[in-house]
Amino acid sequence: NACLAPLYSLEGMHIITVEGIGNCRRGLHPVQERLAEAHGSQCGFCTPGFVMSMYALLRSSKQPPTKEQIEDSLAGNLCRCTGYRPIIDAFGVFAKTDDSLYTASPSESANGKAICPSTGKPCLCRNETDVNGNESSLLSSVKTYLPSSYNEIDGNAYNEKELIFPPELQLRKIMPLRLNGFNGVRWYRPLKLDQLLQLKSCYPEAKLIIGNSEVGVETEFKNAQYGVMISVTHVPELHTLKVEEDGLRIGSAVRLAQLQDFLKKVIAERGSLQTSSCQAILRQLKWFAGTQIRNVASVGGNICTASPISDLNPLWMSTGATFQIIDVNNNVRTTVAKDFFLGYRKVDLKDDEVLLSVILPWTRPFEYVKEFKQAHRRQDDIALVNAGMRVHITEAEGNWIVSDVSIVYGGVAAVPLTAGKTESFLVGKKLDYGLLDEAFNLLKEDIPLAENAPGGMVEFRSSLTLSFFFKFFLYVTHEMNTKGLSEGLDVANMSAIQSYTRPVTTGTQGYELVRQGTAVGQPMVHLSAMLQVTGEAEYVGDTPTPPNTLHAALVLSKEAHARILSIDDSVAKFSPGFAGLFLSKDVPGANNIGPIRFLQKKNIGPIIHDGEVFASDVVTCVGQIIGIVVADTHDNAKAAANKVNVKYSELPAILSIEEAIKAGSFHPHTTRCLSKGDVELCFASNTCDKVIEGEVQVGGQEHFYMEPQCTLVWPVDSGNEIHMISSTQAPHTHQKYVANVLGLPLSKVVCKTKRIGGGFGGKETRSVIFAAAASVASYCLRRPVKIVLDRDVDMMTTGQRHSFLGKYKVGFTNDGKILALDLEIYNNGGNTLDLSLAVLEHAMLESENVYDIPNIRASGKVCFTNFPSNTAFRGFGGPQGMLIAENWIHHMATELRRSPEEIKELNLHSDGTVLYYGQLLQNCMIHSVWDELKASSNFVEARKAVNVFNSNNRWRKRGIAMVPTKFGISFTTKFMNQ
Amino acid sequence: NACLAPLYSLEGMHIITVEGIGNCRRGLHPVQERLAEAHGSQCGFCTPGFVMSMYALLRSSKQPPTKEQIEDSLAGNLCRCTGYRPIIDAFGVFAKTDDSLYTASPSESANGKAICPSTGKPCLCRNETDVNGNESSLLSSVKTYLPSSYNEIDGNAYNEKELIFPPELQLRKIMPLRLNGFNGVRWYRPLKLDQLLQLKSCYPEAKLIIGNSEVGVETEFKNAQYGVMISVTHVPELHTLKVEEDGLRIGSAVRLAQLQDFLKKVIAERGSLQTSSCQAILRQLKWFAGTQIRNVASVGGNICTASPISDLNPLWMSTGATFQIIDVNNNVRTTVAKDFFLGYRKVDLKDDEVLLSVILPWTRPFEYVKEFKQAHRRQDDIALVNAGMRVHITEAEGNWIVSDVSIVYGGVAAVPLTAGKTESFLVGKKLDYGLLDEAFNLLKEDIPLAENAPGGMVEFRSSLTLSFFFKFFLYVTHEMNTKGLSEGLDVANMSAIQSYTRPVTTGTQGYELVRQGTAVGQPMVHLSAMLQVTGEAEYVGDTPTPPNTLHAALVLSKEAHARILSIDDSVAKFSPGFAGLFLSKDVPGANNIGPIRFLQKKNIGPIIHDGEVFASDVVTCVGQIIGIVVADTHDNAKAAANKVNVKYSELPAILSIEEAIKAGSFHPHTTRCLSKGDVELCFASNTCDKVIEGEVQVGGQEHFYMEPQCTLVWPVDSGNEIHMISSTQAPHTHQKYVANVLGLPLSKVVCKTKRIGGGFGGKETRSVIFAAAASVASYCLRRPVKIVLDRDVDMMTTGQRHSFLGKYKVGFTNDGKILALDLEIYNNGGNTLDLSLAVLEHAMLESENVYDIPNIRASGKVCFTNFPSNTAFRGFGGPQGMLIAENWIHHMATELRRSPEEIKELNLHSDGTVLYYGQLLQNCMIHSVWDELKASSNFVEARKAVNVFNSNNRWRKRGIAMVPTKFGISFTTKFMNQ
Repeated sequence: NACLAPLYSLEGMHIITVEGIGNCRRGLHPVQERLAEAHGSQCGFCTPGFVMSMYALLRSSKQPPTKEQIEDSLAGNLCRCTGYRPIIDAFGVFAKTDDSLYTASPSESANGKAICPSTGKPCLCRNETDVNGNESSLLSSVKTYLPSSYNEIDGNAYNEKELIFPPELQLRKIMPLRLNGFNGVRWYRPLKLDQLLQLKSCYPEAKLIIGNSEVGVETEFKNAQYGVMISVTHVPELHTLKVEEDGLRIGSAVRLAQLQDFLKKVIAERGSLQTSSCQAILRQLKWFAGTQIRNVASVGGNICTASPISDLNPLWMSTGATFQIIDVNNNVRTTVAKDFFLGYRKVDLKDDEVLLSVILPWTRPFEYVKEFKQAHRRQDDIALVNAGMRVHITEAEGNWIVSDVSIVYGGVAAVPLTAGKTESFLVGKKLDYGLLDEAFNLLKEDIPLAENAPGGMVEFRSSLTLSFFFKFFLYVTHEMNTKGLSEGLDVANMSAIQSYTRPVTTGTQGYELVRQGTAVGQPMVHLSAMLQVTGEAEYVGDTPTPPNTLHAALVLSKEAHARILSIDDSVAKFSPGFAGLFLSKDVPGANNIGPIRFLQKKNIGPIIHDGEVFASDVVTCVGQIIGIVVADTHDNAKAAANKVNVKYSELPAILSIEEAIKAGSFHPHTTRCLSKGDVELCFASNTCDKVIEGEVQVGGQEHFYMEPQCTLVWPVDSGNEIHMISSTQAPHTHQKYVANVLGLPLSKVVCKTKRIGGGFGGKETRSVIFAAAASVASYCLRRPVKIVLDRDVDMMTTGQRHSFLGKYKVGFTNDGKILALDLEIYNNGGNTLDLSLAVLEHAMLESENVYDIPNIRASGKVCFTNFPSNTAFRGFGGPQGMLIAENWIHHMATELRRSPEEIKELNLHSDGTVLYYGQLLQNCMIHSVWDELKASSNFVEARKAVNVFNSNNRWRKRGIAMVPTKFGISFTTKFMNQ
Repeated sequence: NACLAPLYSLEGMHIITVEGIGNCRRGLHPVQERLAEAHGSQCGFCTPGFVMSMYALLRSSKQPPTKEQIEDSLAGNLCRCTGYRPIIDAFGVFAKTDDSLYTASPSESANGKAICPSTGKPCLCRNETDVNGNESSLLSSVKTYLPSSYNEIDGNAYNEKELIFPPELQLRKIMPLRLNGFNGVRWYRPLKLDQLLQLKSCYPEAKLIIGNSEVGVETEFKNAQYGVMISVTHVPELHTLKVEEDGLRIGSAVRLAQLQDFLKKVIAERGSLQTSSCQAILRQLKWFAGTQIRNVASVGGNICTASPISDLNPLWMSTGATFQIIDVNNNVRTTVAKDFFLGYRKVDLKDDEVLLSVILPWTRPFEYVKEFKQAHRRQDDIALVNAGMRVHITEAEGNWIVSDVSIVYGGVAAVPLTAGKTESFLVGKKLDYGLLDEAFNLLKEDIPLAENAPGGMVEFRSSLTLSFFFKFFLYVTHEMNTKGLSEGLDVANMSAIQSYTRPVTTGTQGYELVRQGTAVGQPMVHLSAMLQVTGEAEYVGDTPTPPNTLHAALVLSKEAHARILSIDDSVAKFSPGFAGLFLSKDVPGANNIGPIRFLQKKNIGPIIHDGEVFASDVVTCVGQIIGIVVADTHDNAKAAANKVNVKYSELPAILSIEEAIKAGSFHPHTTRCLSKGDVELCFASNTCDKVIEGEVQVGGQEHFYMEPQCTLVWPVDSGNEIHMISSTQAPHTHQKYVANVLGLPLSKVVCKTKRIGGGFGGKETRSVIFAAAASVASYCLRRPVKIVLDRDVDMMTTGQRHSFLGKYKVGFTNDGKILALDLEIYNNGGNTLDLSLAVLEHAMLESENVYDIPNIRASGKVCFTNFPSNTAFRGFGGPQGMLIAENWIHHMATELRRSPEEIKELNLHSDGTVLYYGQLLQNCMIHSVWDELKASSNFVEARKAVNVFNSNNRWRKRGIAMVPTKFGISFTTKFMNQ
């Protein structure tokens, strides 16, 4: 979260960076060394983050952390290419806990019997006949990491003392701050509450800041501007954490991570009786953002931000918490949480008031509190719906009835909603199944979600409100039952109240080691690994910018399909730092970006003019580039680009494959057809016992390379030559297109790429448009230009994995043997052809997957839609083709009431199969691989176990599958695709 | 002279740069276009200067300039690789005068007869048999430049209007200035005399500045510091130029170029009678510095600087000029020039006084003034000795006697010296030859030059003082004779008084055009020419420096041979901007720089450790690198480097080839011997009619590439990789040495060289030591480091062409046929071996030149001396070997009293000759080439004409020679050297 930490807030702090803990010249820190040696870095862009998360954990722990703590500490780090297994493996050695996965002792593996160190069982990946050391013997390659505490780690090369907190900072007297920032911003840091209140009286509109995790986002993405900011991180009165008679007093500036620690301590000391609320809050905090955010975000910040999807506010409300508020005249008032939230981000707090603390009351006997949250993913995600519920059950006339209840939902309205009618209905009643129907009906009234409610997914979210309550009901019922005061739940329902716990991640990768020469066949640590774990590896963004470098921001289309009426820069050009706006008319060479293959044939300009560097007349998608603004800083460029006023006349847009098919909107010359046998004849001949038809939709996917698209362009020989450093998978394409766009010979354009932070196909052809746009500005102004896309712009403009639509008709026998497949396949090309035709072809080539189909006909088309042009993505159409195949296989299995694996096994390719694109399969291993894997994984047993689990658990299910695939190489050049 | 113009002085000016007048994208200015198309740029480093000198001339001339003006305007520009012929040819088209060289009309050359456009005669370079258009016909290649005025020039590509002086500057009111500069410097620009006087009263120590041509040099090279500077360029009272009754009044701030124009006008108006002084001063100004300096330097600046070698001060003194001086209280006093100069740079001017003007009196009838100057070269050089002499002859009693005489010499003492005794002796005497002996004796007393007089060359300079007077005597005698008042000079003496006039330079280059394909065989304009004439071509110094770049300065040995006792940086490290000092102990890899060939064999470190990056213990020459200082600016780095205090213990040094031979000081393993026939036997056999012996010394030579040694080094991947851009002839050598010095693999070191501003061998191996030194600083600090040698440092440290000593013994017949040569050849390798052995070998291979010598023995050795290591230089030893050969050929000719050409012709190689290194000559063309050239140049006639001229002219001589050479390729690899 470094990007959210204002520089001001670092006053007096000691900052440790990945470069500071170790480097290649002086020696790697053990954390760095482990990650490199365990192959835990690939593109390396995310690597410093992982290293520092782990380092921070080790530095903050008094004893070696557990594996769970390690995984938790990495929850805020994303990796897109290495995969998490080797990273977690690497850091596993720093854990104090042991695990069978890592305990293969040398004696065990030395007794001649091949023990796989990852499973502890006889090794499947090892060829037993070769054990006795033939030169070519296959050795197990799973590296054994012995558990170790972090001071036992090798660290041979690390010869520096661990960094200490500088004594000069420790001895330093903290002073109140008043700093002046860019654009007239002022930053105050009072050291006492009365200083804060005095500031607040001078600047009632001042924003109070603790972690900046909300204000930072508002400033960055919502153009919020705060002139005066008061950092309250050093006001001790706001940092109270006290156990009091009526509950816990929690200062508003207390960080969420501190609150977690404090709650754990309180729960441990007081036991569960009084701490049901504490426990609910603690459990909710586990899924509240990630470690890095919890380390800085504060209790009061979350409350006052009053986000409609705050995970905590429904809990404060339902637990009956109260807020203490102080005004600038030192008057303190108290309000209950329930009354505090007035409207969308509007709270009961005046400009001259400050939230002082929260008082969380103890729970009474038979008072139960439970938290709920449903999000797309558990970690680091915001809720779709969340809730806090509390019930107090008391004995009245021999009956245990609800004496008090509080049900509050978040994420369903502008403020957390209390289910008042439901509460009233429940009070005085005995909690039993009989109440549920009426409670559900009332809940629907209490928590209405209009069809067009912000956030969408209305049906799902409505059902979540009910199911949360149902789970709460089951929970309380179960709790009462444990005290003998209620009937027990049936076993199938128990799964609804068991809270989710994920075991520590485990995984192994098995491969053969065949030494050939010095390195071939060995799992060598790649050459950049050491540079990546130390942060020394330079990416485009790290390249020092030459003097006079300008920074670029794009003017993007806001319409999916529209005619450009006018482009007005009269305001933009007076924006601070503005240095130029470049449009299609400014392109010195050709404004066209065409499909790469056509360009390759004719070196000069694209034949199919289906793409433009800058939209000249008509825009065909949201996010299409209309112009580029360059300015002295990235921020100024963005601000100026925002001020370019484009007027459009809207045109009808095509926004799905279905719409494209309906409108006949296809890219020209993209119809493809492949066939084998005679599908028509087969269907007509009555040999098929069954014929099924269906549709499969395969969605798109953002590449999400960690390093966004970026290029640094600079003129050489005063602009008669253009050089660039680009994050691209195809520097030669950059050279070619930029030369074309600038009207320069190829010899005068140089593109270099040292390394990139992920690409996955997204930097194969699409990266060039940003380099080309930047080069126009650089060429015209004869100044260096750097373009780095913000993540949101990158996602908006660069296209994705192609979404597909497959329509199938399959004929087969009752035994499950496939006889005929008639397939129509469409992909969503977006607004230019780019690589879509090749992707379509590849999907078609993979669309029989590994199944023998005597009669097959596949026809494909690339749909033109008003989306950013979709492009290459890992698999290049293959996964989509296979997924469609796996879908109709499952459809067959359902039809025949057999397991999909049986159907698959029955139809697998075998030696002599001629694929529908003409290849004769020889030495086909698929049957033996299938059988070996089925046996080694105990698939049949596992399938049975899954079935048993599913029939025993009503609210939680498991799945299992075996999916065979093959994958052609060489993309779609047919004769090479074998 | 841009380097001497303080930024302050440009206030209110319009600056036109080479980039401003035209560029590749918008079109070239005609001046640029001509220079490129006439092949007038090679390395291109000097090219912008030539363009701007020409442009300035055209812009300042109301009508097209003459060829003489063009050459004059280029006198301040140096070129080291293109040669001046194509440059002058290129600009010749802008001249208004015509010349037979450029008048070949199309009709003449189109009549089928091959007329060479450069000579107007039937073309010798054209094969007559091929005239009628065979495909392979040889075409005359001498391009015809038709004369043209500069607005008739093609300039097709030039589509910009000529730049105008900006109206806003023209309309702008000039204001007095008070500017604050770096290091507390203050710059005043008063607009009136009283403002100046007031400033002078406030700051008596203030320096008055006009052209900064003296102060700029003092500041740059002599560490002079002036806190307060007053620019008097805008004080009208100091710019007087008036014809008055008693003479000319010349304001002290008048520029020398203005004075030239004014004198020309006055002389034209007044005729020669009153203007003998004016004429002498005008003639002296022609050789006073160059146009650029005369454009800025002032009359008063030159007077007050009081340089002992001022070209004008002896003239002011001898002409009887007076100086008007004003003090801060407005009192004006007058002093005669003779009394103004008090001592070394000490004049009769108090701190509160300002030189106002000079009054140059008219000359009377029979009053003659003459200027004298002898320098190493005529243009842009300072005098060895100069002088001003005036005599007034009057009739007394029927005799024309000297009534007044003034003889003043410059360059012979701290102040211009008046020859008082000689003057007294002459007064009242009649000027005739009889006076000369006594006058010479008195002159020797008047102008004593001690043996150790500053400036050296005492004997030569002494004789100059006498010969100047002799010339003056002849001049006056001749002048009186023209009036019939004296005997005439004999014809042989006339040559002493004819003033030197050089005709406009002419030259042609003839070559064959044989078209092969599109470009081969054609005189194509090279690809960078357009970039070079527009100044758009980037050299190392133009490469934008990355942020945080440090600048380097070297700590150099001040001793030729000494032990380093201590290196003290205690003062240096507190110097402003200091960032580090790196010495031998700081080198991360090997501190050795060895000969390139040994390195090539063993890729890692040099085998012969005969050079160090930084001297570790002992220095072996003045200028050897001891350390490198890096700082934020180049100036700060130099200042800090000056403060590094190195203590030495002196050791005996070897400072010449002779000393080395005497001491047996040779580089190890460098003795070489080549022989053919039997020299001893031949000398012993009495077949030689004559045997001569002798020695030839061949001096060294500074490379003087226009672009000094420079490298920009920067770390990549945080210093795990080192990249550099270097001005070098061998980037691969930079890569290899820097990798070695830093201990990095070759793959982690990159050196790029786009173009260099001349090298000539001086950037073949020696450039690497500066790159290596800079790379140590860059690597250790992980910051970019730029090193650019100042010219003086470059000349001091980089080594030169090898000086040689050849000792020969030649036996030959009376007919002139060479029978035997015994040769010992030594070169001065300096303090490391570098390429000296290869240079020696190459000299040996060329030391028979083109002469057939039946018996030859040559032995060679490389001398170790305490000079900077000498290195490759155009010709690589070849010229030295040939020069030695030509010397003994001349010795033979003298011995035989025949012309050298006869001896050469007699001994030329011919088909079947076996060279002494074993090559059999086949198809040897030397005889036919020799004969053809001798005929086409009318050599025999020309030789006769030279002889006649020389016998007719006692004081001026001509020479003529034909020198044949051959040159082996592939340096010294014998089998390829043919």
